[in-house]
Amino acid sequence: MTKLKFQPVKGTRDFYPEQMAFRNWLFGKMREVSKRFGYQEYEGPILEPLELYAAKSGEELVKKQTFVLTDRGGRKLALRPEMTPTLARMVAQKQAELPKPIRWFSIGPRFRYEQPQKGRLREFYQWDIDILGSQAPEADAEIIAIAAEFFKSLGLSPKEVKIKVNDRKLIEQKLSFIEIPKTKIQEVFRAIDKKEKMTDGEWKDWLPEIGLNKLQIKDLEGILKDKDFSRESEELTRIFSTLSDLGVSEYVEFDPNIVRGLDYYTGVVFEAQDKEGKFRAILGGGRYDNLVEIVGGPKLGGVGFAAGDAVVEEVLKEYKKIPLLSPTPTKVLVTLFDEAFFRDSLLIAEKLRDGGIATESYLEVVKLDKQLKYANQKGIPYVVILGPDEIKKNEVTLKNMETGDQEKIPQSKLSDYFK
Amino acid sequence: MTKLKFQPVKGTRDFYPEQMAFRNWLFGKMREVSKRFGYQEYEGPILEPLELYAAKSGEELVKKQTFVLTDRGGRKLALRPEMTPTLARMVAQKQAELPKPIRWFSIGPRFRYEQPQKGRLREFYQWDIDILGSQAPEADAEIIAIAAEFFKSLGLSPKEVKIKVNDRKLIEQKLSFIEIPKTKIQEVFRAIDKKEKMTDGEWKDWLPEIGLNKLQIKDLEGILKDKDFSRESEELTRIFSTLSDLGVSEYVEFDPNIVRGLDYYTGVVFEAQDKEGKFRAILGGGRYDNLVEIVGGPKLGGVGFAAGDAVVEEVLKEYKKIPLLSPTPTKVLVTLFDEAFFRDSLLIAEKLRDGGIATESYLEVVKLDKQLKYANQKGIPYVVILGPDEIKKNEVTLKNMETGDQEKIPQSKLSDYFK
Repeated sequence: MTKLKFQPVKGTRDFYPEQMAFRNWLFGKMREVSKRFGYQEYEGPILEPLELYAAKSGEELVKKQTFVLTDRGGRKLALRPEMTPTLARMVAQKQAELPKPIRWFSIGPRFRYEQPQKGRLREFYQWDIDILGSQAPEADAEIIAIAAEFFKSLGLSPKEVKIKVNDRKLIEQKLSFIEIPKTKIQEVFRAIDKKEKMTDGEWKDWLPEIGLNKLQIKDLEGILKDKDFSRESEELTRIFSTLSDLGVSEYVEFDPNIVRGLDYYTGVVFEAQDKEGKFRAILGGGRYDNLVEIVGGPKLGGVGFAAGDAVVEEVLKEYKKIPLLSPTPTKVLVTLFDEAFFRDSLLIAEKLRDGGIATESYLEVVKLDKQLKYANQKGIPYVVILGPDEIKKNEVTLKNMETGDQEKIPQSKLSDYFK
Repeated sequence: MTKLKFQPVKGTRDFYPEQMAFRNWLFGKMREVSKRFGYQEYEGPILEPLELYAAKSGEELVKKQTFVLTDRGGRKLALRPEMTPTLARMVAQKQAELPKPIRWFSIGPRFRYEQPQKGRLREFYQWDIDILGSQAPEADAEIIAIAAEFFKSLGLSPKEVKIKVNDRKLIEQKLSFIEIPKTKIQEVFRAIDKKEKMTDGEWKDWLPEIGLNKLQIKDLEGILKDKDFSRESEELTRIFSTLSDLGVSEYVEFDPNIVRGLDYYTGVVFEAQDKEGKFRAILGGGRYDNLVEIVGGPKLGGVGFAAGDAVVEEVLKEYKKIPLLSPTPTKVLVTLFDEAFFRDSLLIAEKLRDGGIATESYLEVVKLDKQLKYANQKGIPYVVILGPDEIKKNEVTLKNMETGDQEKIPQSKLSDYFK
């Protein structure tokens, strides 16, 4: 027989039970915060028509980073690189029957063809949370508050992570004030978004290419350095005030450098960063008031964010916030004395399960030591020993694997022991 | 602005909150049963190297049904059509450190390019559950018992679903007895597997093509009709006896027609069917003793099954077993009296959330009626009304949306009300 050796595809992950325990814990936090704010869970297809993203996701994401396949009918399909277009499509499809505002969240896989590195993968998971159908700045604030509550629930303090908030409309005004024409605005946004990834020199070489003159470049730098003009935006003012009411203002600050890379944002934008700036954005989002219309629905504004699991994990590792998690659900291992006692052992296990206690049966006749070693390796807290003596007396020996203590318990009272 | 109208890709699904509530309920049942038997959750990549399936999944699945894409490095990747090869790969990779037996389960998306129909989709979800590293027939029985317990937990009785069990080795013996050569066995298995999907005539035309003579065809028909020779297999005998110990024998029966379509099965095979035979297999599985070795690991046998969510859903619909599920997590809606009371409303909502109560804030100043209607439409059970009177007295009016009853409650005692 030929021996083959397969590796997982670059940028994808195997989740062994240890990693899965972390993932379930993390997704549990996302779910818990979402539900606390009354958000409903949804999910969409992983395969979407490629054109859905062409609509507005931004050139880089669509042309360079999307996994594309052609189905047997010749249609181009994408492995979804992000969730918002699917959300907009789904909302557009059923908008008449959905009560507004729509408060929805989803956790699922996304795919981007990028160079894998710390916190960045080709197949990763994202939590998306959005509110649609409200133009109130308090909706934007609620979404940002959810991000802050998520950090709280992970044990990340405002000293470790900050949510930087901006308003694209405010920056547009500023840009128009320094006479950058409307047609150039998207390009300048893109340049602002990329600033952090470039040297100062590279960046200053780029701006003239877009068509900015020296004075405009100087003024733009001035705008981006000023952290103090958010009160010129009535929306930002109301948002910061609401965030204070919601008890999370320590987590947020105004930052004119945050514009986000997706073309569909129309107002408030924000992203969360670790304070040391070691990682890419932990989460990012903003307001998109045209997207539902673009994909064929009514004019229905929304605001939301997405958080990637890989970055969050890196940040949690960095700040040592990952709790000790048991990858095994098993509470009791029922050992097997010898072949003749198979039936008795299986029946005890079955009775425990009937009592709602997660129970494994050992299925091979081997020395008790080996069976206890298995329980130890898997972190199973209790072991049931069932030999001829115990069976004669209708009892079991229950061994606590942590303390090593053993006690005899009548078989009929075994399930109650765990209640 | 151009209006575009996007449809979901054929054979994929949008999970609106209603559908998601069902999905979470169903996945919850799968998780609950898995954990009750002490199985650990794992997950693998959705993208796998195509050759992983070429190894042993069977020609139909690999050549006809797999979604394939070529990455930018020219490698052929598959959207995983099934989970077992990934499981085998992961186990092979870490076999030395994994305590045996390995009891693992996973729930996730799978992709097959098939003609979509009731219970059959191109993007669907499967629950996979497997035990590896035990050759005991009791391991096979445990896996089959889990399938039965799953049906029990869904409220499906043995009158509605049956698990049909067979042993490929036993059938091999029978085939060798009627002088079908070893080299033809896989082909005959494939023919047996397809029998149900063909007319009797089509089937009898096919068998001579494989090389069976008239007598062999007659004998084969005789074997497949006989439901009474399972005791010739020691394994099946022990399995049925264990299933009786585990209290699920009503769910199982011997059926020599079940051989399953995947090439990697080596022993016991089984599938569950609705009694009326209206749907394709609800779940299917078997023993595979070479697969881990084929993908590069040690000789490590396993047994497991996979259940698809779409078929299970159809069966539950047919037998009217889908419970009433609320798609909203929200317990309380805090209404908004007018702009001036925004802060008070937000603070009440925040306090409720702090008390662990899922709470939504209404964010627009509209008539109370409209806000109550929203609560009704979403199925939110309680509404907090906060007008000038209530604020003066530091209380709220709490309306029970089911009964219509209203009562005044001090703001400080509101969270306790829900405990």
